[in-house]
Amino acid sequence: MTSQQKPKEISKDGKFVRQTNDFTTPFGNEPGQLPVEAGRYRLLWSPVCPWAHRSVIVRRILGLEDAISLGTASPMRPKLLHVDWEFSLDPDGVDPVMGIRFMSEIYQKTDPEYSGRPTVPVFVDVKEQKVANNDYFRLTNYLETVWAPFHKEHAPDLYPEELRVEIDALNDIIFHDINNGVYKCGFARSQEAYEEAFDTLFARLDELDERLSTKRFLFGDYVTDSDIRLYATLARFDVAYYNAFNTNRNRLIDFPNLWGYARDLYETKGFGDTTDFHSIKIHYHLSTTIDSHEDKPKILPKGPDLSVWHTPHNRQALSKKEEKFLIREVQQK
Amino acid sequence: MTSQQKPKEISKDGKFVRQTNDFTTPFGNEPGQLPVEAGRYRLLWSPVCPWAHRSVIVRRILGLEDAISLGTASPMRPKLLHVDWEFSLDPDGVDPVMGIRFMSEIYQKTDPEYSGRPTVPVFVDVKEQKVANNDYFRLTNYLETVWAPFHKEHAPDLYPEELRVEIDALNDIIFHDINNGVYKCGFARSQEAYEEAFDTLFARLDELDERLSTKRFLFGDYVTDSDIRLYATLARFDVAYYNAFNTNRNRLIDFPNLWGYARDLYETKGFGDTTDFHSIKIHYHLSTTIDSHEDKPKILPKGPDLSVWHTPHNRQALSKKEEKFLIREVQQK
Repeated sequence: MTSQQKPKEISKDGKFVRQTNDFTTPFGNEPGQLPVEAGRYRLLWSPVCPWAHRSVIVRRILGLEDAISLGTASPMRPKLLHVDWEFSLDPDGVDPVMGIRFMSEIYQKTDPEYSGRPTVPVFVDVKEQKVANNDYFRLTNYLETVWAPFHKEHAPDLYPEELRVEIDALNDIIFHDINNGVYKCGFARSQEAYEEAFDTLFARLDELDERLSTKRFLFGDYVTDSDIRLYATLARFDVAYYNAFNTNRNRLIDFPNLWGYARDLYETKGFGDTTDFHSIKIHYHLSTTIDSHEDKPKILPKGPDLSVWHTPHNRQALSKKEEKFLIREVQQK
Repeated sequence: MTSQQKPKEISKDGKFVRQTNDFTTPFGNEPGQLPVEAGRYRLLWSPVCPWAHRSVIVRRILGLEDAISLGTASPMRPKLLHVDWEFSLDPDGVDPVMGIRFMSEIYQKTDPEYSGRPTVPVFVDVKEQKVANNDYFRLTNYLETVWAPFHKEHAPDLYPEELRVEIDALNDIIFHDINNGVYKCGFARSQEAYEEAFDTLFARLDELDERLSTKRFLFGDYVTDSDIRLYATLARFDVAYYNAFNTNRNRLIDFPNLWGYARDLYETKGFGDTTDFHSIKIHYHLSTTIDSHEDKPKILPKGPDLSVWHTPHNRQALSKKEEKFLIREVQQK
């Protein structure tokens, strides 16, 4: 890449502008929607990707493992296809259900004209052998609502009806300023674009840190969809973004409330057990991105110290209940 | 630079091996030594360089400003001469005493065969208009000893005779494992070389942190030459090395004793007042080094928060004396 060649998702003034998703048909029971069927879909992800991570957290919390299988791409992008994902962790380097080596294959098969990045998370239709939905923004909400018939018994309600308007509003903020905000910092190609994203990011984190000084979770005593979205970025903050994306006003562990909150979630089923710090480090520091320079040997930082994730957080004191999840009273079966 | 081209100071196994100094004639009053004369030499430095910084700290503490003038190169290396230093901060971009635009000019004039990097600090002989000495390892010791006739009244003794053997031994360790240790991390071209340097660096910092749990300074109640050498690296740690050199097991501010120690020095005349965090940040993040990639727009990180340098350190409690410096009883005039 020379300075004359502008990467696809960079605006004239150096801002990172994330591509839109092409496969956004909702799941549901109406005509034209993607039918909700156990065994029909496979969720393809990589543990490094924050957008994919949140779907995997929700899948586990809600007990959807039997209904939706999981295919895992390597944290390392393929050498010659910088923006693709590779199934090199599987035997023979092929996803055993879809029979593909690279993520791009299923995108191409679904739409031979597809020219975007082949992203994760993506729900692929195992029966039709094609992409069903890659709408990372909405996927967790589908799993939380129309997928309820396949939830485990006493699955929590991560998206309570009475809070949806508020959750959606906060999710928009978290998306633009935090989840995608770190990318706007890291992929900026002008100092101005970087500084604008940096200021917005830390202003939002300060706000949420304040909010979490009196609430155990973003909406009070129980984990909701918003917490899962925020967690996915927080878990990557010190180990990847601080260095690789220059989001370094301070680290996660310097926030008085966000840090205990992140540890509280980390020790909760679905969070820590789906968080692969080593893969995250490998990906952000060694693997290629939109600005890769293949000609320089890459070094994997040894730090930071991860043992801090296991220190006590004492966030229980903020909660009236012992349970972290709101359990639905009537299971929608 | 392609992966086939190995930078000059990189060994076969990817280790950074710093060039040696060519101009090492000692200052002194013996034949063949550089005569100690006020007004004869000019110290050329850049505030970003830790090796130069320590000479400037000593010059100030000892009150040698009138005897030795100071020329300051820009934190930004010149665009087309990656390893040179430029006097672009001066009127017309020329050092007013030496009349040079680039540091390399005086090196070339002194030795037309000179092929190393034109480094700072360098003492140039104003009368002869040539390089006198660029031995960054020994320069502070010359200022502390043979330059005594030009010290200010009641100048402290930074290199007490009875401690010199111990100071020299510790200085060797600080040099190899810490001062140059961070560069071995940052310029390593193999994962193994990086990890070896990283482990050594943090093991040494842990040792010194422990040492400083009971001592206010490295040799007790008074600042010595060793403290100045250690400070030069600590002042650059969080603002530059943590990110730019991957020295990220933890930051300086996470060490219980080194951090208070650094702030204690920072507020001491000669330290904080010669520490230019902004220039340091600019240099390490925007300017070129041995591995520069000119084709990528560079971003200056906004962080980290520097206000923490002004928080109380309470290190006085470790000291029996109020004074930080050992004052020579008989001034050698």
